[in-house]
Amino acid sequence: MRLVRFGAPGAEKPGILDDEGRIRDLSGHTADFARDGLSPERLAHIAGLDRQSLPMAPDDARIGPPVGDVRNFIGIGLNYADHAAEAGLHIPSEPVVFNKLANCIIGPNDDVMQPRNVQKMDWEVELAFVIGQRARYVEKADAMRYIAGFCICNDVSERHFQLERSGQWAKGKCCETFGPLGPWLVTPDEVDVANLGLWLDVNGERRQTGSTATMIFDVPYMLSYVTQFMVLEAGDVVTTGTPPGVALGMKEPKWLQAGDVIRLGIDGLGEQCQRVVPFKL
Amino acid sequence: MRLVRFGAPGAEKPGILDDEGRIRDLSGHTADFARDGLSPERLAHIAGLDRQSLPMAPDDARIGPPVGDVRNFIGIGLNYADHAAEAGLHIPSEPVVFNKLANCIIGPNDDVMQPRNVQKMDWEVELAFVIGQRARYVEKADAMRYIAGFCICNDVSERHFQLERSGQWAKGKCCETFGPLGPWLVTPDEVDVANLGLWLDVNGERRQTGSTATMIFDVPYMLSYVTQFMVLEAGDVVTTGTPPGVALGMKEPKWLQAGDVIRLGIDGLGEQCQRVVPFKL
Repeated sequence: MRLVRFGAPGAEKPGILDDEGRIRDLSGHTADFARDGLSPERLAHIAGLDRQSLPMAPDDARIGPPVGDVRNFIGIGLNYADHAAEAGLHIPSEPVVFNKLANCIIGPNDDVMQPRNVQKMDWEVELAFVIGQRARYVEKADAMRYIAGFCICNDVSERHFQLERSGQWAKGKCCETFGPLGPWLVTPDEVDVANLGLWLDVNGERRQTGSTATMIFDVPYMLSYVTQFMVLEAGDVVTTGTPPGVALGMKEPKWLQAGDVIRLGIDGLGEQCQRVVPFKL
Repeated sequence: MRLVRFGAPGAEKPGILDDEGRIRDLSGHTADFARDGLSPERLAHIAGLDRQSLPMAPDDARIGPPVGDVRNFIGIGLNYADHAAEAGLHIPSEPVVFNKLANCIIGPNDDVMQPRNVQKMDWEVELAFVIGQRARYVEKADAMRYIAGFCICNDVSERHFQLERSGQWAKGKCCETFGPLGPWLVTPDEVDVANLGLWLDVNGERRQTGSTATMIFDVPYMLSYVTQFMVLEAGDVVTTGTPPGVALGMKEPKWLQAGDVIRLGIDGLGEQCQRVVPFKL
């Protein structure tokens, strides 16, 4: 299934893509794709519906993030060997775990805002997974059972804040609008997560090209690993690192500027397109 | 006002200490001390009630964390010069910001659990502040208006996970039960936050003694600073760093062991007491 949330920010309704890729309105059948609404039981119920008979969503509906009411938004750093090299950092011996804030999450095509005093704003196309049930000390062999689905995340980052403003990455990872997510939440049965192409363009120029096949740590390992240190809840999002091609890795970095257009996609998970807009109080 | 939440975990009711320090039940007057329930308007309403006429809470009621439904739990690192020295780290030129997870939060006297594979579990008595309204690019002069109140936080940490398991502190800061909070949320009018004594004992031996007077960055500065990088929401918790005396700073560190009893307090904010219990799946 390709699940979506459509409508105005904060008032999104749940929907599902039909056989023709059109959005059908699921709000008569489930409250939201959020927390308990992402449980295996709820998703099995939705899988049993006749999609073609559901009402259509408005043609011009805004697409929101495909998961609502997120509590924990976790990032994995340096999970592609060639990205670690371009960032001038060692390949980690175990996953690097950091936090974004759930209130950074926006829809896949919403504007991304420069923070005040921006200097080095950067992009990162990433595969994210969404937790479907409370996950605590999960074994790798069981990990996929805890995943409700996969989506694209642009892990927008401000490198000056992240790396040059006193310890810890939080300052450059948690800024408002720094988490475009979606368009779809694709259930695990529909995607070969170990072999997905990823790409990202800025103003029509290709910047990132990669494949999840070159991840250092795979998805089941990452889920199991993170749950050795913290409890993940239904609706939590884990974004799994970026392939090479970010501005930070360029000899003369082309940091994001107001007016830039970022377009990114992952095989089977759709595409995102954001405009970078100037800071506004 | 000294606000409390009492009752079983996840089902706490709001309460307030009366003139004799007994808990009075506020559930007839406000839903919870969570999110919008912490707004200046809601707290002004509660301040106008006649406490002595409110029903008493049960004598043996468990005390929960004084804020519910927390979304963001932010930590400030190395905010006392002498603690930075004992940790072998430089005094930062600006605040170090890291994340804990809101699902670590427990009541002030609940058990603290060793995570699986624990090696170096440590304590940190800290002053925490709780946000009362959405805070975004707040000026230092306005900062106090955004604070609903203050409470004690034991920023429990696993130093091996935090410092020796590949980059970023999250792994050692986000473990289950690593955020005892409370007992009271004390409103800003009742506390001189720039001059509070802090202390912590393990098994009756004094480990930490300090004063918020020796903080490197003060509360208004920290609130203003954090909101330059991320949006804080009503009910978010920011814990502001620990004075010297943690195990990490000892020549022969006495890491927390199962069975240890931690007692800690801050002037005017009450006391906490936790027992360290072994890992349990």
